[in-house]
Amino acid sequence: MGRGEWVVAVAGATGAVGREMLKTLEQREFPAKTVKALASSRSAGTTVPYAGGELTVEEMTEKSFEGVDIALFSAGGSTSKKFAPFAVKSGCVVIDNSSAWRMDPEVPLVVPEVNPDDVDWHKGIIANPNCSTIQMVVALKPLHNAAKIKRVIVSTYQAVSGTGQKAITELETQVRQLFNMKDPEAKVYPYQIAFNCLPQIDVFSDGDYTFEEIKMIKETNKIMGDDSIRVTATTVRVPVFYGHSEAVNIETEKKLTAKDARAILSQAPGITVYDNPSEKIYPMPIHAAGEDDVFVGRIREDNTVDNGLHLWIVADNIRKGAALNAVQIAELIIARDKVRVPA
Amino acid sequence: MGRGEWVVAVAGATGAVGREMLKTLEQREFPAKTVKALASSRSAGTTVPYAGGELTVEEMTEKSFEGVDIALFSAGGSTSKKFAPFAVKSGCVVIDNSSAWRMDPEVPLVVPEVNPDDVDWHKGIIANPNCSTIQMVVALKPLHNAAKIKRVIVSTYQAVSGTGQKAITELETQVRQLFNMKDPEAKVYPYQIAFNCLPQIDVFSDGDYTFEEIKMIKETNKIMGDDSIRVTATTVRVPVFYGHSEAVNIETEKKLTAKDARAILSQAPGITVYDNPSEKIYPMPIHAAGEDDVFVGRIREDNTVDNGLHLWIVADNIRKGAALNAVQIAELIIARDKVRVPA
Repeated sequence: MGRGEWVVAVAGATGAVGREMLKTLEQREFPAKTVKALASSRSAGTTVPYAGGELTVEEMTEKSFEGVDIALFSAGGSTSKKFAPFAVKSGCVVIDNSSAWRMDPEVPLVVPEVNPDDVDWHKGIIANPNCSTIQMVVALKPLHNAAKIKRVIVSTYQAVSGTGQKAITELETQVRQLFNMKDPEAKVYPYQIAFNCLPQIDVFSDGDYTFEEIKMIKETNKIMGDDSIRVTATTVRVPVFYGHSEAVNIETEKKLTAKDARAILSQAPGITVYDNPSEKIYPMPIHAAGEDDVFVGRIREDNTVDNGLHLWIVADNIRKGAALNAVQIAELIIARDKVRVPA
Repeated sequence: MGRGEWVVAVAGATGAVGREMLKTLEQREFPAKTVKALASSRSAGTTVPYAGGELTVEEMTEKSFEGVDIALFSAGGSTSKKFAPFAVKSGCVVIDNSSAWRMDPEVPLVVPEVNPDDVDWHKGIIANPNCSTIQMVVALKPLHNAAKIKRVIVSTYQAVSGTGQKAITELETQVRQLFNMKDPEAKVYPYQIAFNCLPQIDVFSDGDYTFEEIKMIKETNKIMGDDSIRVTATTVRVPVFYGHSEAVNIETEKKLTAKDARAILSQAPGITVYDNPSEKIYPMPIHAAGEDDVFVGRIREDNTVDNGLHLWIVADNIRKGAALNAVQIAELIIARDKVRVPA
C-alpha cells in the first residue's frame, strides 16, 4: 500500500487526533510501507479512512507492535502507560501524544522547530507536547534565541476539539438544546460550554493551578531546554470547535521592538506572521483551522516593563498541536537515522 | 408613577443597556417621580417595559431635559457629545455610559465601590467607565489598598452583548446559519464571531493597541486615582452572549498570599468570591449573567515574580458593566446631595 519502507502504527486511530494523524501521514506522503490502525476492542473491526481507501481497525494488544517501526500513540495516558513499553520491547519507536511520559527525564519532549536535537537521545519513547504548549514554544523559541526570554504570562482560549470528538459533539448538542429552549446537558465538561467560558482544563493541582497550566509551565521549560524562563498560565476552554488562541505577554533580557519581533518570526520555521492591524489582519481560530502553521499577530510592545511584548498566537490544536507535530517527529527520526531503540 | 422625588430620563432607552437601566431603576426601587424614555426619532412612539407597564419612547431633542434631574445616557458617543451639554444647561446631571467624556479631566469617572468621592467634583457630567474596566477595578481596588498594585496584565474574554442588541442577534444568526450549512454573514463584526475568537474590540490606535485596550489602561489609572499602576491589556471578543471574563495577573508591592487576597475580597463591596477549586467552584459567564456582583475566583499566587497573583474576574457586562453602575452613581449623587450642576 505504501511508497516507503516503514511500518507505521497509529494507536487510538478512531479518535479525533488519530484520524488527523492518518490524514497527515497521507498528506505529507510519509514513506510508509504499511499503516496499521489500532484501537481498543470496542472499535476493532470498524474502519478509518486512509489514502483514498480504508483501514480496518485492529484491537491493540501486547503483540500489535511486532514488526512495527514507528507507533504514533494518541490513545490516552493510561493506554500509553500500558502499551508503549510493549511497543518499545518489540523494537518500535513510540511517539506518544498523551501526557504520560512528557516529564520523564528519560523521554525527550520534542517540537521539531524548537528542539530537534533532543530526538537523538530517545530510548524508545518520544513525547509529543501538550497542544497549547506546542504552538506557544514554536513562537517563543526564535524570540528567545534573539533576546532571551525571562518571563512568560499566557492566557489561553482553547477549543473543545482538544478534549476529543465527544466534546465537539457536546458543544454542538448544547447549542441545539439551547436554541430549542431545552436545558443543555453537560457530560464531558463539568458545566455548559456553549456560550460560556470554563476556566478549568484538566484537574486542579498544586497552588490551585490546573494540570493544563502546570503542563504549559513545565513542558515549556523542558522543550526550550532552559529552566530559567519563568512561565505562568491561565488556561480557559471557550466555545470554539477548532483552533487554540493564546494571549502571551513576554519579558526579554534584550530589547525587541515589535518590528524586530515581526522580522524574526517571519523568518522562523512553522510560523506565519499574520499581523497588519490597519487591514484587520490578525490570527483567529476560524482561519487557523486546517492549517499547519502557527499564526502570530497582535505583536505589540508592552511598556509596563523594560522589554515587554504581547503576542497573539493561534494554531490548529489537532494538527500542529497534536497530529502534525507527531508526524514531524517521525519524519525527523527517519532523517536522523534514529528509527531504532538503542540496545 | 413613582415613589420618589426625582425626574429621571434614560437616553437611548431602546438599546440593550437602556432597557437594563430601566429594569435596574425598577428593581432597586429608585426614588423616581417620573421616568422618561428617550431615543432617536427612529424609535419615537415605540414602547419599552418599565415597572410592570410601558413607557412611550420620546424623540430626544435639545429640549428633552427640561425639568429632568438625572439623565442616564446610553446612546453612543456622538449622541452624548451632542445632547449631554443641553441636558447640563437644563440643570440636569448626566451620567454617561459612552466613552465620550471619560478621559475629560473636568469629568469624574466613577465606580461607586472604588472612587465614590469623585462624584463630589462633577460639573454636570459623570462618566460611567467601560464595562471591562468596571469589573476589573472593583476587584483590584481592595487589593491595591492592602498591598499597592504595581502592574496589571489583563486578557479579556468579552461577550457580544457589550456591542449591543445587534451583536446578540448576529451571534445567534451565525450559529443558525452554520448549523444549516450556510455561510455565516458578518455585519456587526469584521469576521464571524460564532465559534471563533476576535482579538479586536474597537478600532486600532497607538502602538497597535485597540481603543478597548487603551480604555482599560487609562480608565483604570483614572478611577484608581493612581497613575503609577502600570496596566497593559489584550481584549478579545468570544462567542458568549452575556458576561465578560478576565484573566488578570497582578504584581503588588507588599506580599499577598492567595488566602490573604480571598479574605480581603470577601469583605469588599460588590464582590462575591467564588473560589473553591476542589469543588469546581469558579466564576463563569453563565452564572454571572443577571447578577449584580463581580465574581472573583481562580485566585492563585504567581511565583514568577516576587508578589504575583492571578485572578479570574467575571461580571454581567450589561448590569455591573453598564446599567447597574450608572444607577449606583445616580443613587450616590442623591445620597451625597450632588443632584445639581454648580453655577
